[in-house]
Amino acid sequence: MDIYTLDDIFKLDRRFRANLINSVSGIKSANLIGTTNTDGLTNLAIFNSVMHIGANPPLLSIMIRPHSVERHTYENIKSSGYFTINAVNKTLLERAHQTSGKYPSDVSEFIMCGIKPSFSSLHPAPYVSESPIQIGLRIEEEHHIKANQTILLIGRVLEIRFPNGGLSEDGHLDLKKLNLLGVNGLDSYCETGKVKVMPYVSKQSLQSS
Amino acid sequence: MDIYTLDDIFKLDRRFRANLINSVSGIKSANLIGTTNTDGLTNLAIFNSVMHIGANPPLLSIMIRPHSVERHTYENIKSSGYFTINAVNKTLLERAHQTSGKYPSDVSEFIMCGIKPSFSSLHPAPYVSESPIQIGLRIEEEHHIKANQTILLIGRVLEIRFPNGGLSEDGHLDLKKLNLLGVNGLDSYCETGKVKVMPYVSKQSLQSS
Repeated sequence: MDIYTLDDIFKLDRRFRANLINSVSGIKSANLIGTTNTDGLTNLAIFNSVMHIGANPPLLSIMIRPHSVERHTYENIKSSGYFTINAVNKTLLERAHQTSGKYPSDVSEFIMCGIKPSFSSLHPAPYVSESPIQIGLRIEEEHHIKANQTILLIGRVLEIRFPNGGLSEDGHLDLKKLNLLGVNGLDSYCETGKVKVMPYVSKQSLQSS
Repeated sequence: MDIYTLDDIFKLDRRFRANLINSVSGIKSANLIGTTNTDGLTNLAIFNSVMHIGANPPLLSIMIRPHSVERHTYENIKSSGYFTINAVNKTLLERAHQTSGKYPSDVSEFIMCGIKPSFSSLHPAPYVSESPIQIGLRIEEEHHIKANQTILLIGRVLEIRFPNGGLSEDGHLDLKKLNLLGVNGLDSYCETGKVKVMPYVSKQSLQSS
């Protein structure tokens, strides 16, 4: 086994350390976050930090890092109160990744990256019209992480949009069928492979284990 | 497109809603969390909520849900100050999933599920000896989510252990090579598929886009 202690980690080159710590937590989902500023200009940014917070009420979160392009997203959510989460599939990957670049502040990433927005009557945040899972959210609460000045921003789901027939009988969206991608570390995108569904573990079924 | 509004979501059957909201956020990583209580009894529980918080200092988090088996994990982390995150690969899947059952409070899941622990000289929390990524952490801070009484628990990485040669030249752990699994929703586990590495998006490379 190779072992890296905290001291070793602190001594690593900045980029090497970022790759290591971003990959040890395992596979993440790739999503585009859509927002609108006070002038009505849309913004779109790729995030690998979308997390499930709870189902009832339906809550999802994103992490906002200081001093990054993600700050536009944060400012727009704070001023408008709303954002969208849009799953990235294989067709969207190249254009979605381009949203991580720096652009003039008066031009939308939707235009710069060739991505078509669409809108709902329920809120002002733009969806990615080609995305197979489109989620509209209203800001619910935020938590400031003292250890590194990041922000956990939680939204309440207002609306979920997906292709007809995308849902299984028990309520699952099939990520593989929708060609959704995962992220390994910062920039390695991967397909979702073969699926194995595990049964609920009851007290009974454990007798034999 | 099918559309579910917040009102629709509230009206869903509890299990259907849980499956829907757990799957809309996309693929998650599967990990076993190892802890020890004040009597020295080890505990092991499967989590799909491990998240990257930051690389410098190295921070990872887990979500603790109220009234679940995860509470033992929380109590042990609070009393001991330490926990481990252990990535689940194909070999571990069946036994890892069994840790989600309910067991007598005086027996360890390590024994009940046939998983061998291993220990470090740096902290008291047990590792899963067969896991290809073993991370030891010390509790750093916690945040209580008002909207649904869950807890975001952040740990500082003290140690990372992985197979010799598991790291790429730039610091990435190759999740596919390590046979790591992702989780779609609550109980659908999937392999990590073909990988595409995207280049860093500089201002220059965007001129042509």
